[in-house]
Amino acid sequence: MNTALILEHWMGHRHLSRRTLELFPENQLFTFTIGNMRPYDKLALEMLQIIPTLKGVVTGEWKWQPAFDDVTTKEALLQAWDETDSQLLEVWKGVTVDRLNAVEADNFWMTEATPNLWKVQYWVDNEIHHRGQGYVYLRALGIEPPAFWER
Amino acid sequence: MNTALILEHWMGHRHLSRRTLELFPENQLFTFTIGNMRPYDKLALEMLQIIPTLKGVVTGEWKWQPAFDDVTTKEALLQAWDETDSQLLEVWKGVTVDRLNAVEADNFWMTEATPNLWKVQYWVDNEIHHRGQGYVYLRALGIEPPAFWER
Repeated sequence: MNTALILEHWMGHRHLSRRTLELFPENQLFTFTIGNMRPYDKLALEMLQIIPTLKGVVTGEWKWQPAFDDVTTKEALLQAWDETDSQLLEVWKGVTVDRLNAVEADNFWMTEATPNLWKVQYWVDNEIHHRGQGYVYLRALGIEPPAFWER
Repeated sequence: MNTALILEHWMGHRHLSRRTLELFPENQLFTFTIGNMRPYDKLALEMLQIIPTLKGVVTGEWKWQPAFDDVTTKEALLQAWDETDSQLLEVWKGVTVDRLNAVEADNFWMTEATPNLWKVQYWVDNEIHHRGQGYVYLRALGIEPPAFWER
C-alpha cells in the first residue's frame, strides 16, 4: 500500500468533481432534480463531509461533525470545496499504512469494525457514484460534462 | 498492496452493479435514456469489457477484443455478466503485486505507460460512475435502486 498513490488517485477524482460542480448553472445547482433525487448541491455537499473520517483515521478518535450545511450559493460551495481540499491535504500528512490497516468502528457511519482503508475507499467510491449522477443532470440540462478520464 | 482485497472490493461493486441491472424492466433497459445518453444496456455492456485488460495485467500481452456486442435481451446480458465474473475470478488468480506495479502501455486505451494497478482501478471507477447513472435512470422510471453501501 502506498499512501501517496491513494491520495493522488483521490485528488484526481476531486479535481474532476470540482469541474463537474463548476459546470452547473447557479439556479439549477440548487433546484434541478430527476426522479425526486437530491439536487446536485446536496450531492456535492456530501462530498465535503470527509474530514471527520480522515481525522479518525489519523488519530483513532471518531467524532462526527457536519460541515458547510449553511451553504446557499455556488460561490460559497466552491469555496467550501477548496477549503475541504486544503484540509484533506493537511490531514493526509498524518495518514500511515499502519493506520489504514487498523480495524476500527467509526461509530458514526459504521458500528462494525472495518479496516480504515475501507472508510477512505468508501468516500472515494461515493464521490464517483454521485458525480456520475451529476453527469446525468448536466446532460439533461444540455450541458456537456467533463471527460471522465481527465483528472 | 493486497490482491485479495482489491478483488473483494471490486466483486462487491460487481454484485451491486448486477442487482442494479436486474432492476431495469426489459424494454427500458434497451431504450430508456436521459439527455441523449446511452441506454443502460450499453453502460452495462461497457462493464463487461474488462477481460482483455486483466489478461494484459497477467501476461504483459495487450490485445483488445470486444465482448458480447451481440446481446439483445436482458437475460443474455445477465448471462454475459455472470460469464464475465467467472472469467474475472479465473484470470485474477494470475494477478500479482509485481504485475500490478509494472508500468506498461496497454496500447488499446492508453499509449502512455502507467502502473497496471491504475488500469484495474480505472475499470472499477468506470463501473461505479456508470452504475451511478443507472441509479438516476431507475429513479426517473420510478424504481428504487439498491442501497449503495450493500455489496
